[in-house]
Amino acid sequence: MDKEISQAVVSRLPRYFRYLGELKASGVERISSQELSDIMKVTASQIRQDFNNFGGFGQQGYGYNVEYLYDEISKILGIDKKHQLIIIGTGNLGTALAGYTNFSTRGFVFKGAFDHDPSLYGKMIGDVEIRPVDEIEDFIKKNNIDIAVLTIPKDQAIPMADRLIKAGIKAIWNFAHVDLDVPDNVQVENVHLSDSLMKLSYNINRYERAHKSK
Amino acid sequence: MDKEISQAVVSRLPRYFRYLGELKASGVERISSQELSDIMKVTASQIRQDFNNFGGFGQQGYGYNVEYLYDEISKILGIDKKHQLIIIGTGNLGTALAGYTNFSTRGFVFKGAFDHDPSLYGKMIGDVEIRPVDEIEDFIKKNNIDIAVLTIPKDQAIPMADRLIKAGIKAIWNFAHVDLDVPDNVQVENVHLSDSLMKLSYNINRYERAHKSK
Repeated sequence: MDKEISQAVVSRLPRYFRYLGELKASGVERISSQELSDIMKVTASQIRQDFNNFGGFGQQGYGYNVEYLYDEISKILGIDKKHQLIIIGTGNLGTALAGYTNFSTRGFVFKGAFDHDPSLYGKMIGDVEIRPVDEIEDFIKKNNIDIAVLTIPKDQAIPMADRLIKAGIKAIWNFAHVDLDVPDNVQVENVHLSDSLMKLSYNINRYERAHKSK
Repeated sequence: MDKEISQAVVSRLPRYFRYLGELKASGVERISSQELSDIMKVTASQIRQDFNNFGGFGQQGYGYNVEYLYDEISKILGIDKKHQLIIIGTGNLGTALAGYTNFSTRGFVFKGAFDHDPSLYGKMIGDVEIRPVDEIEDFIKKNNIDIAVLTIPKDQAIPMADRLIKAGIKAIWNFAHVDLDVPDNVQVENVHLSDSLMKLSYNINRYERAHKSK
């Protein structure tokens, strides 16, 4: 467990976790890598290779115990523990994220919301009150916040990230359309929506080009 | 241009495009792969390798022409042409996506919004009226819609994707927390927010584990 796992493998873990959760919910107790391969549409050898990074989890010819595998991946993902989140920026996106019950069932507990706009102070987002940005540092310390969600414009995101890092945040979930420069002890996960949309556009274009040339 | 480019390379193109756009906006005319490497924090050899997939774009020792490179990547991404979008599901997330002016400046034009909830029909989201889901097929044909954005619950997403495919949609930008099964001529880009948050949790956990064991 101590060797460095590639981020490509890490990126696939939540998907395994999602499928295993569904199998567990529908009462499946054991599954072979071939069966998992069929429903997830990745090769069985990819699955075995990915799992080997974490010691394997199962026996050849015997298959995986679904519940055990689900629990192990949940521990690897660190979602067997609770995380405390704050959201900075309470526009439509921040409000959407605050409302995802899916996150809270995974142990991501939404504790606070902050905005620059005084007319919003005291209003509710989910079951949490919107507070002034000035209170962020105190709030992080008092409430043991480990993750900050940034849904603010990109020109505000870099100075805000610096503030959060000084205040001891462990991780930033960044929706601002800019790359953040953080020290090694702070984790960042970017959701660059424009980039995702451009990738979709690339794939439309590529398909049409290939199709025309036939 | 006709060989298959890996999706890993494709994933990096929007980021190049974003940095080149900023360089262009600040008046930079030429840039070497080393300078680009410094600001983007990827290796110069990675940059050259990525660009070689598309014929190179520049000359050794002479650097890249920023505007030319920006334009070429924009063509490769297919964002030199306009795309027509509809959003299905007009909750907070759909509303947030409808409001991103950033998308429209990239040529992604938001043309229609659809919901199951009759109390929303006729209300506005951005500058577009919310319509009943029943009108989707007609609307796609009449307005030459190529991209559908799904911000609906996962149990509704699979039947909706089937409907959209039958109606001739070219691409689905999927925010529902489920994988869609589509034919080759339909492109899908998933934004699985829970998966992204779990990846962040993994990286917090990994850092703490490595730190404790020292």
